[in-house]
Amino acid sequence: MEDCQSIIEEIYNVVKGDNKGDVASYIPELSTIDVNKFGVCLRTTEGKQFAYGDFKTSFSIQSIAKVLSLSLAYSILGEQIFRRVGVEPSGAAFNSLSQLETENGIPRNPLINSGAIVICDILCSALKNPKRELLEFIRSIANSKTIAYCPKIATSEKETGFRNYALINYLKSFGNIENDVDTVIELYFHLCSIKMNCVELSIAFGYLSNKGIQATTDKRILPESGTKRINAIMNLCGFYDEAGEFAYKVGLPGKSGVGGGIAAILPENYSVAIWSPKLNEKGNSYRGMKFLELFTSETQDTIF
Amino acid sequence: MEDCQSIIEEIYNVVKGDNKGDVASYIPELSTIDVNKFGVCLRTTEGKQFAYGDFKTSFSIQSIAKVLSLSLAYSILGEQIFRRVGVEPSGAAFNSLSQLETENGIPRNPLINSGAIVICDILCSALKNPKRELLEFIRSIANSKTIAYCPKIATSEKETGFRNYALINYLKSFGNIENDVDTVIELYFHLCSIKMNCVELSIAFGYLSNKGIQATTDKRILPESGTKRINAIMNLCGFYDEAGEFAYKVGLPGKSGVGGGIAAILPENYSVAIWSPKLNEKGNSYRGMKFLELFTSETQDTIF
Amino acid sequence: MEDCQSIIEEIYNVVKGDNKGDVASYIPELSTIDVNKFGVCLRTTEGKQFAYGDFKTSFSIQSIAKVLSLSLAYSILGEQIFRRVGVEPSGAAFNSLSQLETENGIPRNPLINSGAIVICDILCSALKNPKRELLEFIRSIANSKTIAYCPKIATSEKETGFRNYALINYLKSFGNIENDVDTVIELYFHLCSIKMNCVELSIAFGYLSNKGIQATTDKRILPESGTKRINAIMNLCGFYDEAGEFAYKVGLPGKSGVGGGIAAILPENYSVAIWSPKLNEKGNSYRGMKFLELFTSETQDTIF
Amino acid sequence: MEDCQSIIEEIYNVVKGDNKGDVASYIPELSTIDVNKFGVCLRTTEGKQFAYGDFKTSFSIQSIAKVLSLSLAYSILGEQIFRRVGVEPSGAAFNSLSQLETENGIPRNPLINSGAIVICDILCSALKNPKRELLEFIRSIANSKTIAYCPKIATSEKETGFRNYALINYLKSFGNIENDVDTVIELYFHLCSIKMNCVELSIAFGYLSNKGIQATTDKRILPESGTKRINAIMNLCGFYDEAGEFAYKVGLPGKSGVGGGIAAILPENYSVAIWSPKLNEKGNSYRGMKFLELFTSETQDTIF
Repeated sequence: MEDCQSIIEEIYNVVKGDNKGDVASYIPELSTIDVNKFGVCLRTTEGKQFAYGDFKTSFSIQSIAKVLSLSLAYSILGEQIFRRVGVEPSGAAFNSLSQLETENGIPRNPLINSGAIVICDILCSALKNPKRELLEFIRSIANSKTIAYCPKIATSEKETGFRNYALINYLKSFGNIENDVDTVIELYFHLCSIKMNCVELSIAFGYLSNKGIQATTDKRILPESGTKRINAIMNLCGFYDEAGEFAYKVGLPGKSGVGGGIAAILPENYSVAIWSPKLNEKGNSYRGMKFLELFTSETQDTIF
Repeated sequence: MEDCQSIIEEIYNVVKGDNKGDVASYIPELSTIDVNKFGVCLRTTEGKQFAYGDFKTSFSIQSIAKVLSLSLAYSILGEQIFRRVGVEPSGAAFNSLSQLETENGIPRNPLINSGAIVICDILCSALKNPKRELLEFIRSIANSKTIAYCPKIATSEKETGFRNYALINYLKSFGNIENDVDTVIELYFHLCSIKMNCVELSIAFGYLSNKGIQATTDKRILPESGTKRINAIMNLCGFYDEAGEFAYKVGLPGKSGVGGGIAAILPENYSVAIWSPKLNEKGNSYRGMKFLELFTSETQDTIF
Repeated sequence: MEDCQSIIEEIYNVVKGDNKGDVASYIPELSTIDVNKFGVCLRTTEGKQFAYGDFKTSFSIQSIAKVLSLSLAYSILGEQIFRRVGVEPSGAAFNSLSQLETENGIPRNPLINSGAIVICDILCSALKNPKRELLEFIRSIANSKTIAYCPKIATSEKETGFRNYALINYLKSFGNIENDVDTVIELYFHLCSIKMNCVELSIAFGYLSNKGIQATTDKRILPESGTKRINAIMNLCGFYDEAGEFAYKVGLPGKSGVGGGIAAILPENYSVAIWSPKLNEKGNSYRGMKFLELFTSETQDTIF
Repeated sequence: MEDCQSIIEEIYNVVKGDNKGDVASYIPELSTIDVNKFGVCLRTTEGKQFAYGDFKTSFSIQSIAKVLSLSLAYSILGEQIFRRVGVEPSGAAFNSLSQLETENGIPRNPLINSGAIVICDILCSALKNPKRELLEFIRSIANSKTIAYCPKIATSEKETGFRNYALINYLKSFGNIENDVDTVIELYFHLCSIKMNCVELSIAFGYLSNKGIQATTDKRILPESGTKRINAIMNLCGFYDEAGEFAYKVGLPGKSGVGGGIAAILPENYSVAIWSPKLNEKGNSYRGMKFLELFTSETQDTIF
C-alpha cells in the first residue's frame, strides 16, 4: 500500500474527465450541487490515510447513513433485530411496496427504505433521545464533533417523501412499527439528511474493515460477528439493483447514496469513501463506481 | 310486485335463523354491533316501499358510501373523473397497494379504497366545503335531513387506518392527489363513517334504478349515461372479490360494506337496501347475500 | 324491434367508414385477412333474424369459442367445474402467468387462456373423443353442419403458442391438468381455430339469451341457472381488460375474439354476432364495439 | 492450514449427529437416498487435499451444475452472455415465473432455473454436440473421466418437470430461446442429472479459487475477470433465498443443490465440496451449512 497515494491520484485524474450521469433531482439540496465535486479518502486498518480532491467537503450521505443506524441498532440488540427485518436481497426497487404486501410487512433487508424505517423504529424504542443519540453515535465512530443533520434536507425529504410516508404507514398496518408514525419518520428523514466529508465517512466505516474495532481509538463498536453480518448485508444489498454488477466490477462490500457518495471496505485492509454527485442510471455515483473499479483492478485485491 | 311485501317477509324469516359469519372487528363501533339486527327495504321506481325487520335502525354503511361520493363527483365533472381512476375490476384486494405500483398510481376503479380516495381528492378540489356539501348531497338523494357522519367511527377509522394512510401517500407520490393529504383523508374517513337506515339507503340508490332521476322528487341526479356508468362499475367491482359470485347468485348491480349493508338495484324496477352485520369470508353480509339470492330467484328478475 | 333491420343498416353504414385499429398479427391466418370485412347478425328469442354486410362469411372466432367449450363442460358437470377454475375478473392480462403463481394454479375465470385450458382438460377427462364431440356440440347449438376447425390456424397457433405451452405446463405443475399436456393443448388450439359466420354465431349464442333453450329447436342446452352463470362470467370477464368500458358503452354480456368477432346477448331478447377484423388497443374489434355502442343507445335496451 | 485435516474431522464429528431436515422428494432418485451419507473434501490452491467421510460416493449435484454450464458458456462467449441473463439476485423463488413477466423474459441471474435454461440454449447454439461437449468440459475441470449424466434422474426430471417446461416455453415466447424447446430442455435435464463425488466436485471448483487456473494442471479455464464474475454471482445468488444468511454464517461464494451438495470457495485459498442429503427449510443441506459455518469460524477466514 506504500504507493497508495499515487495510485489514488492517478486513477482520480483518469476518472475526473469522464463525468457522466445526472444528479438526483427530487429535492433542491441535491439538484443544485456542484457536479464537478469529486473527493476520495482511504483509511487503512493501521490508521494511514490517503486522500485527494474534495475530500474535506461535506456532502449529503443519504442512504449510506442506513449502515450507521443499522450498526447502532445492532450494537444495542444484536441479531434479534432480524426478527423484524430480513437479510436477503430484495430484487425490487429500494422503495417498493409490493414486496411488503406478500411478505406481511417484513422488509427484505435494512438497507432498503422500508427496512431502514423499521431500524429507526427499533432505535425509537431503544433510546431515550433517538435523534441526539444517533448523531452522537455517528460523531463517535467518525471521530468528529461537527457532523450534523441538515435541517434543510430533512425538511425537503419530509415535504416530498410521500412514498416513505406510504411505507411507514403500510409497515404500521402490519404491526411492524411500534412507535408513533410521526416520531419514527422524523428520525428517518433526519438520518437521510446527515452530511459528512470523505475523511469522516472513511473513519466511520473503519470498524467494518477492522473486525468491529475503531482503528483510531481501538474501541470496539460491534462484535466481530456483527461486523461480518453488516458486511454480508452490504455486499448483497448495498447498491440498489446493481449489487451484482458492483460485486463483479469492484468486489467490495459497501453502500451508496443518491447524494453521489459511496463507502466501501476491504476486510482487514481499509475503508474508503468517495464522492461525485452525478449518478448512473441505477442511482449509484458514476465516477465513484468507476474509481473503485479501477482502484481494485490496480491493487488486485477484492473479496473475490 | 303486488305480493312483494309477503315475498320479502317470507324470505326474511327463512334467512333469519341462518346467521353465520363474523362481524368486522377492526374498529370497536363495528365489532360491538348487535349481530341479530336484520333489516330490509325495497323501493320501486314508482315510489312504492316494502320494508321489514330493523329497517329503521341506522347502521354504518361504510364502503357503500363510495357509490354516493362517486355519484357526486360524476354529477360535477362527468366522465373526466376517469382520467384519474379506472373503471375495470381490480382482481386484487380492496386495499391492495401493489397494483398501484405497476399502474403508476391510477386506481383500477372508484370502489376500491385507493379509487375512493382519489374521488375524495376530486371533491376537495371541486367543492368549497367538501365535508358539508357531500353530506348535503347524501341527505338530498336520501330525502332525509337527519343523516350524519358518525364522529366516533371517523375517529376510529383514523386511528387504525394506516393502510389507508399508506394508500393516500402512495397516490400522492404518483401525483394523483392534488390536495393536502390530511384534508383528503379527513373527508375519506368521514365518508366511511356515514350512518343510514335501510329506508334512507334504498331511497338514495333510487336514481340508479330510475335512469338518473330521483323517484320521490322527479329530480335528475345524474344523466342517464352516468347512471349506466355507475351501474356498470357496481356490477363489476361492487363486491370485493365476490363480484362474479354475486353476479351469478343475485344478478343485480350493487355495493356492499363491512358494516353488513348491501344496496342494489334492478334497472327500471327497484332499489333495495339490506342490513345484517355478520360477514361471509369475502367480507359481504352473509344474510344479506342469502336474502338477495332467494329474492331474485323468487321474483325471477335479474339483469341476466 | 320491427324496425330492427333498418336500425342495423343505418348504424352499419355510419360505422363502416370509421375503420381504425390493427388486425392481430401473431399468426398469418389473422394478419392477412381482408380488413374491410364487416358483418352483423342479430337473432331474437322469437327466432327473427336481422343481418347485414358480410354476415355469411366465416371468420376465426378465436376466444369467443371459450364460451362454447365452457357451455359444454357446464352441461356435463355443472357447478363443480368451478372447483378448478374461478368466476372472478382477473385484473391481469388474458395470458398472464403471475396470477397463477399466487393462486396455486387455479385460473381466475374460464375466459382467460389458463381457464379455457383447464376447461379443455375437463372435456378431455369427460369425453371419449373430445375434439369430435366438442365440434358436434358447436354444430348442434349453431344449427349448422358445416362448421369446422381450421387446420391451418390450429397449426399456426401450435407453432407460435409458447405462452400457452407455458400456461398448460404451469397448470400441470400445480396438479390442475389431469390429462397429458399434448392431448389437452391439441384440443385447446383446435378450439381457437373454429370458424363460423355471424349467422351461425348468433344462433349458437341464442340459448344464452333464452334462459338456456335453443330458440330454433326448443332444445334445452343448459339449465336456466347455468345460463345465468355464463352470462355473469361473460359480463365480468368477456372483454379482456375492457370489461368495464364495454359494460358501460354497450351493456350486454358478451365475448370478443382477436379475429375481430364479438358475440353478445340481451337476456330474454336477442343474441348478436358482429365481425370486423381491426382491433382497438385493448384487443377488441374497433367497429364491432362502435356498432354495439350505437345500437344499444338507439334501442335503449341494455342490462343496466 | 497444516492442521486442516484434524479440524475437518473434528467438525465433521460434531455435526454428524445433528442430522435435521428432509431430503428432496420430487423424484424417486433423491427421495430414496441414504440420509446418513455425509462427505467432505477440501482442496487448496497448492493442490493439497483434505477429505473425510463419504467423499468418494457420487451424488446428484443438481443445481451446483449450473455453475459448470455457466463457466463453459462464459469460456466461449465471455461477458456477452449477460445480454440474455442478468447478474442480480432475484428476490423470488428459484423457479418463479412472475419475475420474467415484468422483465420481458430476461432471467435475473444464471443460477435460477430460468437463467440456467437460457445458458443451456446458449450452449446449444455455440456447440456442435452440446450434451457431449458439456460433459467433456466437466470431466476435464474435475479431472475425472468417469463423471456421467444419470439417465434415470434425467428421465425423472423430464417426467415431473412441468414447471421447467413452463419456464422454457415462457422464455421462448419472449424470444429468449433460440433453439428448439425440446433440444434445450433435454440438455437442461441432463445438466441437472450429473453425479459427482466430493473429490471431483472440489477439483472442478478449484479454478474459481485460483484466479481461473486449474490447480492440478495449471490450465486456464477462465480469464481472471470471468472467475471474479462467477464468484460474485455465486455470492449473491448461490443459495436460493438464503444467500444473505449463508454470506453471514459462512461467508464464502458457493452454490448448493437439492441433492444435498454444496460447493464453495475461498479465493486464493481453497475450494470445498460437502454432501449431506437432508435439507433445511430453504432447500440447502442442513449439515453442509452447519459444517461450513463451524469450519469458517474455526479457520477465521472468509471473504468478509
